[in-house]
Amino acid sequence: MSELKIPKRLIMTPGPVSVDPRVSQAMSNSILGQFDPDFTSIMDETMTLIRKSFLTKNQWSFPIDGTSRAGLESVISSIVEPGDRVLVPIIGRFGHLFAELVQRVGGIVHTIECPLGEVLPQEEIIKALDMVNPKVLAIVHGETSTGRLQPIDQLGKACKERGIYSVVDAVATYMGTTIPVDEWELDAVIGGAQKCLSVPSGITPITFNDRFSEAINTRKRVEEGIRTDEKTERETFIKSNYFDLTQLQDYWSPKRLNHHTESTVMVYALNTGLKIALDEGVEQRSARHEYHHKGLKKALEALGLKIYGDKDHEMKMVICVEIPDGVEANQFRQELLEQFGIEIAGSFGELKDAIWRIGLMGYGVQKQNILTFISAFSLLLSQQGVKGIDPTKALNTLIKYYEQA
Amino acid sequence: MSELKIPKRLIMTPGPVSVDPRVSQAMSNSILGQFDPDFTSIMDETMTLIRKSFLTKNQWSFPIDGTSRAGLESVISSIVEPGDRVLVPIIGRFGHLFAELVQRVGGIVHTIECPLGEVLPQEEIIKALDMVNPKVLAIVHGETSTGRLQPIDQLGKACKERGIYSVVDAVATYMGTTIPVDEWELDAVIGGAQKCLSVPSGITPITFNDRFSEAINTRKRVEEGIRTDEKTERETFIKSNYFDLTQLQDYWSPKRLNHHTESTVMVYALNTGLKIALDEGVEQRSARHEYHHKGLKKALEALGLKIYGDKDHEMKMVICVEIPDGVEANQFRQELLEQFGIEIAGSFGELKDAIWRIGLMGYGVQKQNILTFISAFSLLLSQQGVKGIDPTKALNTLIKYYEQA
Repeated sequence: MSELKIPKRLIMTPGPVSVDPRVSQAMSNSILGQFDPDFTSIMDETMTLIRKSFLTKNQWSFPIDGTSRAGLESVISSIVEPGDRVLVPIIGRFGHLFAELVQRVGGIVHTIECPLGEVLPQEEIIKALDMVNPKVLAIVHGETSTGRLQPIDQLGKACKERGIYSVVDAVATYMGTTIPVDEWELDAVIGGAQKCLSVPSGITPITFNDRFSEAINTRKRVEEGIRTDEKTERETFIKSNYFDLTQLQDYWSPKRLNHHTESTVMVYALNTGLKIALDEGVEQRSARHEYHHKGLKKALEALGLKIYGDKDHEMKMVICVEIPDGVEANQFRQELLEQFGIEIAGSFGELKDAIWRIGLMGYGVQKQNILTFISAFSLLLSQQGVKGIDPTKALNTLIKYYEQA
Repeated sequence: MSELKIPKRLIMTPGPVSVDPRVSQAMSNSILGQFDPDFTSIMDETMTLIRKSFLTKNQWSFPIDGTSRAGLESVISSIVEPGDRVLVPIIGRFGHLFAELVQRVGGIVHTIECPLGEVLPQEEIIKALDMVNPKVLAIVHGETSTGRLQPIDQLGKACKERGIYSVVDAVATYMGTTIPVDEWELDAVIGGAQKCLSVPSGITPITFNDRFSEAINTRKRVEEGIRTDEKTERETFIKSNYFDLTQLQDYWSPKRLNHHTESTVMVYALNTGLKIALDEGVEQRSARHEYHHKGLKKALEALGLKIYGDKDHEMKMVICVEIPDGVEANQFRQELLEQFGIEIAGSFGELKDAIWRIGLMGYGVQKQNILTFISAFSLLLSQQGVKGIDPTKALNTLIKYYEQA
């Protein structure tokens, strides 16, 4: 049998990123049955950890067995009925994904957009809420396609006052910046595993409050085959079984409804990844991302590169740099991967050949990685003939930053 | 940080079951980016392995990032449009799950049922196809809730001749018995990871042919945000984004459409688990399941226990025994788990307190495990006061079987 041969990588993309070896080790533990008390107690503990990560008291804090968009789809398909209006502020690719998910389940999408590289003022979004009067506001917190952090702290309250449900895609920001779900009065928030939490892709922590729970439970339908009472569900039952959050509530509670077979090792990984992150501390982890982001940005600017987008609303977990003249964008990324094992990302649509995205997410955000990155990146730019690149200046800038800050 | 403490277990249920340590080791490899050429080549290799496992030439053989029912839902929601008739033969709990999945997406379910513990003759199913004239036949191959193996070898051809699409749930039988997808002319088949393949739950291999591909592609819709041409999709587009097999085709092909973020470590696990299984050989693996099934059944019968259900259609990967008088079914299972770390399963609905299900699936199906199991199981029955139990006789029967067979 030919074994897997996994080459060494320094992943500097907006995910998936490297994981802490302790997470890998946790995944090598043996399997437990899904209703084994030793496993259900790990499930319960994982719920507690998810609550802490979102700074929430929400009972309903559990993972979805699928990648991040499975988490998004579970929330959207559970709350949005055909014909429901949903307001989707769009500042980049992942806003469109929300629109897409709403359209799939028959919701009516209203959008509000701003130029790429900017964010939407919250007052504008609140005005749009009043104009559209949607059932749901679905908004992206960290838009990795443009590297913008959308302000959302006032939106939960504004939605609540209007009887609207707020749904937040925090896939890219989760555990890289503080998201106080209760303080911001958000109804449902989707985190991500393979980004700042640094757990492998394939499991997605979400949280939602009682208000949201009541709304989705008007659409509850216990599945055929284990339903014990008469059919009572409305015709507007949730149109997915796998993503039906009301069934997942019964699975992730003492009822232990037989639903899917929980992904044992992904729960081990999530549990361990959350413990590592919470041991560091939500605030401290946020500060670490900010600290290295500032340093790397200085170094990139010292190279004469232009940082893309609105300076006041930068995500701290990804830096978007404009691709300098005289370099073939994709070929350069390929060279960086082949020669150094370092991966950075391109972007989407009209930004595809305009910016590179350099990720600073979770476990890998460490001084030696950033220093290694800037050295290889700047030297390769210089070697490829990009004018005005001074690798030594970049390195000096970063070393000085780390010595002083 | 408190580390996970996973107790020792001998899992004798119909899944999830223990995995080969080589699978666990593969999962501890570091993360690769989803478009890293070293990762996409692992993806391609995994597709080849899936083809071999299903004995098919189907190009479209790839995993779904989710548990088995995610695989089932992806197939059903991609092929079944609102108003489509689907014939679902039901011989137990998982037939009802197919009915459920069809109802969720608005299909019209026609069922044909037989008494629990039996299977449906293929002639009866073919007659029902002619009566109902459905778009799809959705059928369970191995019904673990009753331990029956439903004959299906004639159904693919019968469907094809009638212009019907055959969809098979082979979650429990996959890699425990031979499923020659091309020879049986099946259109779409869903395998399972956490059963006879012995890979952790959370990823699900599926395969479908060009005929099925053409059908689902009439419902294709490239998602908003990365769609480059004009909207051309029909109103009957697939109502899930995550489970849209036409988008997954573009992800699992050189197009490498940006969709979900593939679950790196689950692909490592699947790839390695498939290599191990294919090194053993599909036929040999099937024979191994049959061999140990026969031995354990003899030993259980030597205890005076009654084997449940139609003897001519037994699954070889699960033995259903009637629960003997004088034992409290759930408490006994709990004792077996607490005292010996051995897990067996109950069943569902009216079989809940009538049978225990003893799984024989994949990696754990080894002589020493079966001998350990029968010893602990029979002694505990005896110790709990069940009459007529003779542990020594059971052990002798099994030892003799292994010596002679």
